[in-house]
Amino acid sequence: MFKGLLSVFLALVAVTSIMAKSEKTAVKQEKRVPQTLSRGWGDQLIWAQTYEEALFWARSRNKPLMVIFHLDDCPHSQALKKAFAKDKEIQRLADEHFILLNLVYETTDKHLFPDGQYVPRILFVDPSMTVRADISGPYSNRKYAYEPSDMKLLRNNMERAKTFLKTEL
Amino acid sequence: MFKGLLSVFLALVAVTSIMAKSEKTAVKQEKRVPQTLSRGWGDQLIWAQTYEEALFWARSRNKPLMVIFHLDDCPHSQALKKAFAKDKEIQRLADEHFILLNLVYETTDKHLFPDGQYVPRILFVDPSMTVRADISGPYSNRKYAYEPSDMKLLRNNMERAKTFLKTEL
Repeated sequence: MFKGLLSVFLALVAVTSIMAKSEKTAVKQEKRVPQTLSRGWGDQLIWAQTYEEALFWARSRNKPLMVIFHLDDCPHSQALKKAFAKDKEIQRLADEHFILLNLVYETTDKHLFPDGQYVPRILFVDPSMTVRADISGPYSNRKYAYEPSDMKLLRNNMERAKTFLKTEL
Repeated sequence: MFKGLLSVFLALVAVTSIMAKSEKTAVKQEKRVPQTLSRGWGDQLIWAQTYEEALFWARSRNKPLMVIFHLDDCPHSQALKKAFAKDKEIQRLADEHFILLNLVYETTDKHLFPDGQYVPRILFVDPSMTVRADISGPYSNRKYAYEPSDMKLLRNNMERAKTFLKTEL
């Protein structure tokens, strides 16, 4: 019995050391983690890469577009991202009803910054190609900013964006 | 001794079945693979997301920009991507000397399609923000197209792009 246990132990040690070895090798190679288009806002969602691409999909699939401006080194962006990614209802709405784009760099379209180029900010664009400046967050000085505590308002705004400005294009 | 061997065997079976189980679970969830910015053109390279972002990095880091237009459902794009990704010298040059952007959707900058919006095509942009229409591939009807057999010319063109139009900006 003792022999048996020892063998199990040795086998486990062997397996563990092999695993540890492969991990070390991985670290040694210093491979970069491939960048994702989601950038952490929902790995399971389909993201457009550019604004032009997103507009094309919004129009051709007749879905509203949601544009999220953020920065990797902005703690407010990071906090919002965390809340956004873990909110199952937001993720479901986004997946089923929206064309999605998250950007760490501004576009040249001034309609996407009605009150400035701050981050984080979320803009909705109607499939008729109209930026929905009427759909805003709770802050008067930065109308398109949201905080993690504003997820309910964001969900409501997503529902509003689903009601198009023009039903026929 | 027999008992010992049996125990090792059982331990390995246990470990294997745990691994198989976790694999099954992963398949069962049918998770989408997160989209990468590299889209297979070099997972270890740093890719800009948009043309605006790429231009900004080219200017601020004083590096030439390489823009690859391609499509997922285009066999010529796929073949070129494969050759591009496995060419170690191209990957090294790209990593060390270029700002990189691959796009599946056209931009609004007409300088990026000097002779049409076909795929695949590769354009170089000088850090002075000038599209290098003079750096072209071997085909007269589609000047910025490359085939997998043209990797040597592409390497040479990358070397040419490293010589800036203006040494001072």
